[in-house]
Amino acid sequence: MATQRAALDARSVEARSTSGYPEPYRSRVLPREKRALGDAFGLTKIGVNLTTLYPGKESSMRHFHSSDDELLYVLEGEVVLVTDDGEQRLEPGMCVGFAAGVKNAHHLVNRSAAPARYLEISDRSADDAAEYPDVDLSYKEVNGKGAFTRKDGSSF
Amino acid sequence: MATQRAALDARSVEARSTSGYPEPYRSRVLPREKRALGDAFGLTKIGVNLTTLYPGKESSMRHFHSSDDELLYVLEGEVVLVTDDGEQRLEPGMCVGFAAGVKNAHHLVNRSAAPARYLEISDRSADDAAEYPDVDLSYKEVNGKGAFTRKDGSSF
Repeated sequence: MATQRAALDARSVEARSTSGYPEPYRSRVLPREKRALGDAFGLTKIGVNLTTLYPGKESSMRHFHSSDDELLYVLEGEVVLVTDDGEQRLEPGMCVGFAAGVKNAHHLVNRSAAPARYLEISDRSADDAAEYPDVDLSYKEVNGKGAFTRKDGSSF
Repeated sequence: MATQRAALDARSVEARSTSGYPEPYRSRVLPREKRALGDAFGLTKIGVNLTTLYPGKESSMRHFHSSDDELLYVLEGEVVLVTDDGEQRLEPGMCVGFAAGVKNAHHLVNRSAAPARYLEISDRSADDAAEYPDVDLSYKEVNGKGAFTRKDGSSF
């Protein structure tokens, strides 16, 4: 039986600074840090990351999800949201949500001189996929296990 | 087809100050304010509220959920987390997660002199239920529509 874990300082959760992206995309996001807050409490239905994005870096390649809802809430610093509709500057206390299946690709870019921090929140559909209109990249999960390929399905 | 809505200041979302609780429980939580950030972007799989809890008030009656994961992230002020394990003081930047089905009832109490603000995040299972060990209250959803009754099933 799972037990209830005590509350903790989100920044005390160990940071992961990894990416499943192949180069040259990996270097465009790293050393982005993600602290998996949901995992720290044994959550399986929602994912909540405290993410630190460094100056000059992108949160991800611009993408949209087929099955997962997503919401970003900015805590510190300043980022630029880029979608098909253009650019928007986000400051602390601002948020944006992306409903599953809405085909408007998005990402955040840190064009400031300081690290930015935000919460990224999503559900965990078993078979999510993501499309990347700007680059030759595709993502697909089968039974919850995901992999990146080129758009023609070939591996990197 | 849904469209992508622009990012917004979370505090610009209209606040709801309502509760499905009967008295005397309703007065123990209100005038708690909830701003439904997920709804503002048409999200259906996750719920994200920006909640303001006033001095002397409780976030809810102490409870646990059968099917929904839940995570709280404190943004401003100070609250006390109460569970079966005791009490813990939470400050901004602290978080706590409650995995679906873990039978350790929890809530937050604002014992400070200032309003507290936190994000409450959950998935949206179709048939969630909640148990309330401290009071004669029960919650059950059928096809996503929930109702509060007494523990013997009788209505208020």
